[in-house]
Amino acid sequence: MSNISEGITHLKQDEAINVDVELMGPLGFSVDQLMELAGLSCACSVAEVYPRDTHPRVLILAGPGNNGGDGLVAARHLKHFGYKPTICYPKPTDKPLYNGLVTQCRSLQIEFISADDLLKDEGNGNYFARECDVVLDALFGFSFQGAPRPPFAAILQALSPSASPPPIASVDIPSGWQVEDGDVDGNGIRPDMLISLTAPKECSRKFEGAHHFLGGRFVPPEIAEKYHLVLPEYPGTSMCVRIPSQL
Amino acid sequence: MSNISEGITHLKQDEAINVDVELMGPLGFSVDQLMELAGLSCACSVAEVYPRDTHPRVLILAGPGNNGGDGLVAARHLKHFGYKPTICYPKPTDKPLYNGLVTQCRSLQIEFISADDLLKDEGNGNYFARECDVVLDALFGFSFQGAPRPPFAAILQALSPSASPPPIASVDIPSGWQVEDGDVDGNGIRPDMLISLTAPKECSRKFEGAHHFLGGRFVPPEIAEKYHLVLPEYPGTSMCVRIPSQL
Repeated sequence: MSNISEGITHLKQDEAINVDVELMGPLGFSVDQLMELAGLSCACSVAEVYPRDTHPRVLILAGPGNNGGDGLVAARHLKHFGYKPTICYPKPTDKPLYNGLVTQCRSLQIEFISADDLLKDEGNGNYFARECDVVLDALFGFSFQGAPRPPFAAILQALSPSASPPPIASVDIPSGWQVEDGDVDGNGIRPDMLISLTAPKECSRKFEGAHHFLGGRFVPPEIAEKYHLVLPEYPGTSMCVRIPSQL
Repeated sequence: MSNISEGITHLKQDEAINVDVELMGPLGFSVDQLMELAGLSCACSVAEVYPRDTHPRVLILAGPGNNGGDGLVAARHLKHFGYKPTICYPKPTDKPLYNGLVTQCRSLQIEFISADDLLKDEGNGNYFARECDVVLDALFGFSFQGAPRPPFAAILQALSPSASPPPIASVDIPSGWQVEDGDVDGNGIRPDMLISLTAPKECSRKFEGAHHFLGGRFVPPEIAEKYHLVLPEYPGTSMCVRIPSQL
């Protein structure tokens, strides 16, 4: 079975990094802007697949980098959309942008939960089993290399298929996967949804979940031409678009 | 005829300024973020009322302040939505944020036009008459006081009702109007649409156009409570909502 659509381009790790460098350099974007649009895309994508009436409780797992920032933005928009988001952000980044994102979420009365409390099981299952309808995985993005360290390794283990977690929506890269090679040891998470930002990365060829979306509606023609990006068209004013999963 | 909906709050000028100060101070937002969301709201509102098939040519009039910045952001999103925006930005602000917004628009091949070329009439009407389906008025916002100076006065004159301009969508404040008292001398523009950001300002009580929208879906409960804001609910994941114009 192929889940690669004709004409959809996949970026390698160094290409994805270069696209970001160009967007924030010669193309004039600030990281605040891109993160705002990326996070909004994620929130809109989640809302298309997991309606708030059936999946109100979204747990956002935010990592220490830009991927985590996208998650914090998504949490804020999900709250405005009527969801009940909770955030686990074990290694907060002490920079004005990230501190601001946390302040914004706290001012919306979004609850923060520690990794310990997330994983604690007092006989009735851990947080994923007890209080979570969908997980937004924003732990690691396209800069990730190597293996996850504590407490992220334990969180990812609790999300492995053998633990029967709730549906997982991964932001750009399923966390723990290698950006190009995917889940190399075969023990990684199996997201139900992948939200590719700007363009899908190589590892998304190995994504077998039901829902592949594209977000980040800000790619100018220069970038599209330079990287030979052939991407689905966004409908109307939508911030996201479904990528056909099968030919 | 009243065009004030029950429960819709109207901010005075100093209140509007204070809301911005709070959002960007204790509530942790950056101007980049707020402008991105405000501009996106404007683009989405325009798209709801003036479909791209019937109104593809949108002229964005961008003033020197934050209102102009919202307009530049809206221009970029309108381009992504399939419109053919053109920008008139006579007094560009030389700050990184504004320079970046211009760069982003230029990289999307959005055309910039001078105020002179806008107003020039070589026998077949000025630009408004010849090449424009709708005007997005982002000249002056809630900080505006006094009277518009050149070249803005001439532009606004070309948009007065006696000049039969195309439909005008004003961002937050119809430009030239006083924030609280509206069009005091009675010669001002008569927008067809008003996109109030965060909450309507006092002058919007005097707005008599067909379409009043609200944008800026980022108001936290602290702000809403402090200013007794009673606002319509945004539907689903929409960045804008129509404000009922008549009781």
